[in-house]
Amino acid sequence: MKILGLDSSGLVASVAVVENDVLLADYTVDYKKTHSQTLLPMLDEIRNMIELDLNSIDAIAIAAGPGSFTGLRIGAATAKGLGLALDKPLVEVPTLEGLAYQLCGTDRLVCPLMDARRSQVYSGIYSFCREGLSFRMDVVKEQCAVDISVMIESCNELGKEVIFLGDGVPVFAKKLAEEMKVPYSFAPAHCNRQSAASVAALGAVYYTQGKTVTAAEHQPEYLRMSQAERERAEAERAENEHAGNEHAQA
Amino acid sequence: MKILGLDSSGLVASVAVVENDVLLADYTVDYKKTHSQTLLPMLDEIRNMIELDLNSIDAIAIAAGPGSFTGLRIGAATAKGLGLALDKPLVEVPTLEGLAYQLCGTDRLVCPLMDARRSQVYSGIYSFCREGLSFRMDVVKEQCAVDISVMIESCNELGKEVIFLGDGVPVFAKKLAEEMKVPYSFAPAHCNRQSAASVAALGAVYYTQGKTVTAAEHQPEYLRMSQAERERAEAERAENEHAGNEHAQA
Repeated sequence: MKILGLDSSGLVASVAVVENDVLLADYTVDYKKTHSQTLLPMLDEIRNMIELDLNSIDAIAIAAGPGSFTGLRIGAATAKGLGLALDKPLVEVPTLEGLAYQLCGTDRLVCPLMDARRSQVYSGIYSFCREGLSFRMDVVKEQCAVDISVMIESCNELGKEVIFLGDGVPVFAKKLAEEMKVPYSFAPAHCNRQSAASVAALGAVYYTQGKTVTAAEHQPEYLRMSQAERERAEAERAENEHAGNEHAQA
Repeated sequence: MKILGLDSSGLVASVAVVENDVLLADYTVDYKKTHSQTLLPMLDEIRNMIELDLNSIDAIAIAAGPGSFTGLRIGAATAKGLGLALDKPLVEVPTLEGLAYQLCGTDRLVCPLMDARRSQVYSGIYSFCREGLSFRMDVVKEQCAVDISVMIESCNELGKEVIFLGDGVPVFAKKLAEEMKVPYSFAPAHCNRQSAASVAALGAVYYTQGKTVTAAEHQPEYLRMSQAERERAEAERAENEHAGNEHAQA
């Protein structure tokens, strides 16, 4: 089984190929270039390096959101295009699950934090359980867009040691220091951001469970409205209220 | 602090750049090409992608052995050349420590297994301990070249659950099933082989502890003789015995 993984949900652009238990290739950058400049050239680079016949892959695992709206759209467009052209299914890996899977094998709770701006995070809570010779990841709290204080409260309520990771860690480190009541730590640099290798490895698990969609079916999971949608909704609400007021005055 | 990581100790060729807590770039392939074809082109590729000024790095962390003799020599030549040209120190990361650090944050023992042929493994045993907001890796058993049964015996004696990783896992899976008496598991694909990101992240820890060498000082740690050296030693021993016999007969 060969899975192509893609993650462009955050600042990181990452492509990887996993075949059974082996990571054949992984190319990840965390740099200011936009994903439209990086993702496909990176895929082409590893394709050449490992002489990969794209027709030989079984599925495309994509970090399916939440995350940067533009990043998710570039990832979705890339995955849908490849899936359509190659006639391969897609595996939608929730972004936070792909992040948490980086720490596969820990006994602690894993809480990825993605900075969602406006003091919110995209986050979730995960745990690992040995099952035979490998690990099963369990969702303790489904991914969501919430205030950082809500996530901290959830962690405190669970009462178990937590490892945090993700680009939300430097943003909310002070808040964590102030409000966390259980011991916690931060994942080190090599496993604290998005990784297509992790998405591909977890995608392989979901693929064997039959959790696939077609290229046409795939849609990113934004978890909340984009800024443009939010502003339009606010404008419409204001307009309606204004109209309502005029009606009441008439 | 910016660390360039290199690992060519096994089948994997891997280059990465870590800056403080962020993995700026990681390019890893596990493919049949020789490292002389891959390592420097991969470095050049990420250098271009993230517009890296090599003079801005603080040190070069190198998987310093054990491993494939040719791979280690290519890695050492590359690291020494870069260190000399850039006037930067090297950080020697024992190969097995770099491998084990992939699983940073687990409560289980970590036992990387590299297939060393002739039923031997390069291996070691490691554990992690939270220290403030990060993890310290402790060496439970120093890296060594031993029979796989010796490592299994060591794991059984320690009596704690173990996670195995490395290219020795598929080779010795049957042996482990037969002889392991404590629960164990295998690391998943995204973190079960050499990774320059892990070498760079652990190298950053050692760099801050002042554990550096000059480019001129660095030598790979082979842990045992190469096949050529072994055959010469055997030939010399046979010759001496032969001479001794002739002397006795004279």
